[in-house]
Amino acid sequence: MERVSIADKMSQFSDCWSPKLVGQVNDCAIKLVKLEGEFVWHHHEGEDEMFLVVSGRLDMEFRDRTVEVGPGEFIIVPRGTEHRPVAVGGICEVMLIEPETVLNTGNVRNERTVDNLDRI
Amino acid sequence: MERVSIADKMSQFSDCWSPKLVGQVNDCAIKLVKLEGEFVWHHHEGEDEMFLVVSGRLDMEFRDRTVEVGPGEFIIVPRGTEHRPVAVGGICEVMLIEPETVLNTGNVRNERTVDNLDRI
Repeated sequence: MERVSIADKMSQFSDCWSPKLVGQVNDCAIKLVKLEGEFVWHHHEGEDEMFLVVSGRLDMEFRDRTVEVGPGEFIIVPRGTEHRPVAVGGICEVMLIEPETVLNTGNVRNERTVDNLDRI
Repeated sequence: MERVSIADKMSQFSDCWSPKLVGQVNDCAIKLVKLEGEFVWHHHEGEDEMFLVVSGRLDMEFRDRTVEVGPGEFIIVPRGTEHRPVAVGGICEVMLIEPETVLNTGNVRNERTVDNLDRI
């Protein structure tokens, strides 16, 4: 039951697109991640995903439109919805709220897939 | 799949200790709440609770110690743990991450119990 500082945790890593576990609330994992550039199109078959932007700007691309998300804003991507996160103008820091079982690349498996997350 | 601004949502209500639903991620509810002064001692039998401070200062009191939580920081209170949230120095704005079923006063029922949360 310790206080966790998001900024402190963010300072402990620099790799992008590799979520770190920072907490667990019931079945829900709290993860921090840094994004740079564009990710891969993917979806999660059975899991909703919440992206809360801490710093920078996230464009959440859907097949028919793009939603811009800035600091202090969040977007929830429902299960089954194809999406592509894109960091605009540099590194974007994000808190993810989703089941621990969510694979970062969803239904896609490639060199950016991270199977085992570090806990920091 | 819309962007949600935490500040915009916070501006839509002023009552304290009455969480508002702003999102749902799988089995997890995203709630916003304003705190002022001290709450009641309580615990939640089967649910962990996460408090992410948006503005102001939260003292999370446990029976044996107090943890100060400021903006950009969070604390996870495990199920079964008696606690009392106290806002220090004015209103404290908090994002709660917890199952929708969590009753704000936990095992206690009094005039501060809110049974049905507004969705904003």
